[in-house]
Amino acid sequence: MDIQAIITDIYHEVKPLASQGQVAKYIPALETVSPDYLAISIHKIDGTHFSIGDYSIPFSIQSIAKVFGFTLAYKALGSEMWKRVGKEPSGNAFNSLVQLEFENGIPRNPFINAGAIVLADILISHYKNPPLELLNFAKKAANETSISFNEEVARSEKETGNRNAALAYFMKSYKNIVNPVQDVLDLYFLMCSLEMDTYCLAKSFLPLSNQGIIPSTKERIVSLNEAKRINSLMITSGLYNESGDFAYRVGVPAKSGVGGGIVAVIPNVLSICVWSPPLNNLGNSIAGVCALEKFTTLTGISVF
Amino acid sequence: MDIQAIITDIYHEVKPLASQGQVAKYIPALETVSPDYLAISIHKIDGTHFSIGDYSIPFSIQSIAKVFGFTLAYKALGSEMWKRVGKEPSGNAFNSLVQLEFENGIPRNPFINAGAIVLADILISHYKNPPLELLNFAKKAANETSISFNEEVARSEKETGNRNAALAYFMKSYKNIVNPVQDVLDLYFLMCSLEMDTYCLAKSFLPLSNQGIIPSTKERIVSLNEAKRINSLMITSGLYNESGDFAYRVGVPAKSGVGGGIVAVIPNVLSICVWSPPLNNLGNSIAGVCALEKFTTLTGISVF
Amino acid sequence: MDIQAIITDIYHEVKPLASQGQVAKYIPALETVSPDYLAISIHKIDGTHFSIGDYSIPFSIQSIAKVFGFTLAYKALGSEMWKRVGKEPSGNAFNSLVQLEFENGIPRNPFINAGAIVLADILISHYKNPPLELLNFAKKAANETSISFNEEVARSEKETGNRNAALAYFMKSYKNIVNPVQDVLDLYFLMCSLEMDTYCLAKSFLPLSNQGIIPSTKERIVSLNEAKRINSLMITSGLYNESGDFAYRVGVPAKSGVGGGIVAVIPNVLSICVWSPPLNNLGNSIAGVCALEKFTTLTGISVF
Amino acid sequence: MDIQAIITDIYHEVKPLASQGQVAKYIPALETVSPDYLAISIHKIDGTHFSIGDYSIPFSIQSIAKVFGFTLAYKALGSEMWKRVGKEPSGNAFNSLVQLEFENGIPRNPFINAGAIVLADILISHYKNPPLELLNFAKKAANETSISFNEEVARSEKETGNRNAALAYFMKSYKNIVNPVQDVLDLYFLMCSLEMDTYCLAKSFLPLSNQGIIPSTKERIVSLNEAKRINSLMITSGLYNESGDFAYRVGVPAKSGVGGGIVAVIPNVLSICVWSPPLNNLGNSIAGVCALEKFTTLTGISVF
Repeated sequence: MDIQAIITDIYHEVKPLASQGQVAKYIPALETVSPDYLAISIHKIDGTHFSIGDYSIPFSIQSIAKVFGFTLAYKALGSEMWKRVGKEPSGNAFNSLVQLEFENGIPRNPFINAGAIVLADILISHYKNPPLELLNFAKKAANETSISFNEEVARSEKETGNRNAALAYFMKSYKNIVNPVQDVLDLYFLMCSLEMDTYCLAKSFLPLSNQGIIPSTKERIVSLNEAKRINSLMITSGLYNESGDFAYRVGVPAKSGVGGGIVAVIPNVLSICVWSPPLNNLGNSIAGVCALEKFTTLTGISVF
Repeated sequence: MDIQAIITDIYHEVKPLASQGQVAKYIPALETVSPDYLAISIHKIDGTHFSIGDYSIPFSIQSIAKVFGFTLAYKALGSEMWKRVGKEPSGNAFNSLVQLEFENGIPRNPFINAGAIVLADILISHYKNPPLELLNFAKKAANETSISFNEEVARSEKETGNRNAALAYFMKSYKNIVNPVQDVLDLYFLMCSLEMDTYCLAKSFLPLSNQGIIPSTKERIVSLNEAKRINSLMITSGLYNESGDFAYRVGVPAKSGVGGGIVAVIPNVLSICVWSPPLNNLGNSIAGVCALEKFTTLTGISVF
Repeated sequence: MDIQAIITDIYHEVKPLASQGQVAKYIPALETVSPDYLAISIHKIDGTHFSIGDYSIPFSIQSIAKVFGFTLAYKALGSEMWKRVGKEPSGNAFNSLVQLEFENGIPRNPFINAGAIVLADILISHYKNPPLELLNFAKKAANETSISFNEEVARSEKETGNRNAALAYFMKSYKNIVNPVQDVLDLYFLMCSLEMDTYCLAKSFLPLSNQGIIPSTKERIVSLNEAKRINSLMITSGLYNESGDFAYRVGVPAKSGVGGGIVAVIPNVLSICVWSPPLNNLGNSIAGVCALEKFTTLTGISVF
Repeated sequence: MDIQAIITDIYHEVKPLASQGQVAKYIPALETVSPDYLAISIHKIDGTHFSIGDYSIPFSIQSIAKVFGFTLAYKALGSEMWKRVGKEPSGNAFNSLVQLEFENGIPRNPFINAGAIVLADILISHYKNPPLELLNFAKKAANETSISFNEEVARSEKETGNRNAALAYFMKSYKNIVNPVQDVLDLYFLMCSLEMDTYCLAKSFLPLSNQGIIPSTKERIVSLNEAKRINSLMITSGLYNESGDFAYRVGVPAKSGVGGGIVAVIPNVLSICVWSPPLNNLGNSIAGVCALEKFTTLTGISVF
């Protein structure tokens, strides 16, 4: 199977789709990103890799960073974590607050905003220098160094992040945030400001395709069970309120961010990252979703 | 791998769990079922099969029948179906009505009650004799004949089914039910009254493990794509509000019913059905969920 | 105070407002009513009365009939009624179902649809011939005979009344409807089909302005306490989700219907009815609300 | 009518009721108040007044202060205010957040917490020294000086006020809070910390019974229209989710606070304040509601 040829074809097919979406506009740093960027990167567990397009341009991975946050929080708390956050899909955004109220301040899963704010709270309680731990974890998982926070993005997110502040205070009223809300939000927004290119991002998820082990270093970064479980969380909750549709059309675990990135895991085979900033109305990259659907269709890959 | 030994061990390990649950009590026909029944059946795609316990005692498969209903409705409507019902997980039961209202009478997915009522409506519009089609489809999928409706169960469900009637009238107010509500409910309750034993039920799902083909007859019953997509719907929405937890702990597509049955699909390998009537507070068989978790743990099987 | 002059002025001032609204369109019998009708009628407790416009043309009083239904139901059940229905304002329509769910099938008050469906259920349980009782009660309250049901309207309401059917079945699932749903809905829709002109409708509410006594016959129709309490229910819940605004701007108890009628009670002074079919987006007569606001402003009348 | 005799009787009748309630426990300053306090004060517009019990002991008036806040905000913004806050009753607390979301961050009315937080925001935008204005307004309305903020209560409220912070940030995300959230909350909590005794509190509401004029000074403090409208807001929304029931049983405009105070307005006659700290499950003083019901029943006073 000539993967480079496949992604080249896909690259050209999905390029025109970007014009149907809108880049995220709620902060200047995202709004000014060119809608024309498009990149696809694949890393196979055998160490080979394939890329096309703007694969060496770093972008804001946004919610994709929640997977790193989850992993570190889970390492700290283990299954005790499930007292603080659920693992069920969350339904539509519209319900976010009433659902949180109905469930006594316990977010449905770690990948919705409320859930990731709880992750930030857990990291503060259990790590000395959470930002450094997050950064180092991402670098180690990718075995790459060109990964960094964008503090301007983090600051800018915080300035407009009143809704996330509302979620945090609301959970604090249920005692599900234990640290000062402003500290928790600072870390949450910093986490979401992580930047890297598709080459690095695909590579950083490769251990999840390889039973928890970094292929290049043979180092285990999460247990086999953790790897499987992170993948299962991604398949049920990784693409906001499009998760079910994505599972249906694409059939693999994946996580998206409003920066236009989507990274997917094909267990025991490869990891793949697509980046194209324009989003559909559910907040996922239009060209990204389509590229991944084409990839699994053309290769016949699916977990089902 | 000695599957018979594995399910025998599991059988004995999970048997005591049944006492922690409650059989469904909302209709007499379910309430009077003995909580002591326990059965496990496995069919491999190579034609071998393994069973233990009460595997030849027919039981009410309830919501599991929605998978048959979905398949027939999809055959009739194709992707047009997605104008009538979504494919996103549904969150908690508490939101069912407000969510339906927010989404203009379009149920979140075909496996929640509202969604399956829409399936019944579609079947009435597109098939001459929907009950017969449903029955024949189940028999054909299983390549078995001892499958039947229990009309007393259907009648009894209807008598207490005021909430489902409310859902149906509510969707009719959005024009998402086109046939007379009473006819739609009759078919819905009849569908849910299907009865068979674990041997037949596991066998009837075997085509979903075999890329859509009935192994024993080589007949294709659904396309490869349909098989994958039904599996993806099951993994995101097959166990009510426990779907995420089940995907996390067990890691395979499955569908449950309040009769205490759960049937799971291991793509390209086997199908497995467990039956134990006592339910947990989310409406799934306590021993059933645990047996399936043990099975995938012991065998190392998972789609992730 | 020259009441005839006042209502004549108001009549001409509000007439142009009708063009800003829309007549109710959900049933043919309402949709075909001319938007140009306008009538105002006043009955004082001293027996004098004043009318202008189309005050002798009968119209569909719709929800206004819920006040008659409430009175009869309260006579039958007394304060036991408050176990079946609340007396709190209901917030916006959007919440109707989730609120009903949250409060275990007990509607917030007797004037929202769910509440009036419960009234119909109570009437069926406690009266031999509820339609006749309702009709006779309205005739007696008004001391007039030209009041009747419009069975075509009732039938037509029922045909499109899927949402009310949903409410009824939903409450039945909480056992807050005890009679067959279809019978309850038949009575509910018949009740709402009551027809009379503004002269009769204002007169039928006059006992509520007169401490419960029909001025023309000196007959007590409800106790002093009941009269006050019906008035208090009207001020908090009489105009759907515009009740607070109406209390704020107009300051008197009133009840509206989607037929375009509004009837208001000035305790110890008079009752007044305005009819103009075009509705605002909250379902109340545009010209009607404005006419009543002008009336209380010009006369300085208010309960506050 | 011997008012002193009437309130003396009522005082003794309702005293035992306090034991059925619970004092507010969410902040130490409220939790430690003796549940045995009971006071009733009446001021007639003719200048006479009557009191019994602990009527010279200052207590935390809490939400009752929202009436002062509303009046000052309305003076500043006029009817423009209604773009920032509604005037409809709010239904149950359970819906507060989803309702706020559904209505784009516009609170239902100025007396629910979200609404009063908007009032605080308006005061900050339009007054140089909002706390001083509030204090002076209360003193002027009462023509009394022994009224003050309790800064310890304000601080303590803020420490536990995470839910109010959530509301404020949530409204800010809809741009319905324009000043810094922390400043707005500071003022909100300070406003709710106002302290006075029942003698002063009843007297401070007397202008609302007297068409807007302070009887003792003949000074107009609000217009006739404003007085009527504040009264109408109180009758539809003054007692949280018990407003409808209170209107039904007591029949006059009133405002309650979790400190156990309730103040009611009998237009053109008198104002009355009752204080007894133990609350019912809807957050209103148990003895207070009952005392007011007895008072209007015994005197035959009602606005209806």
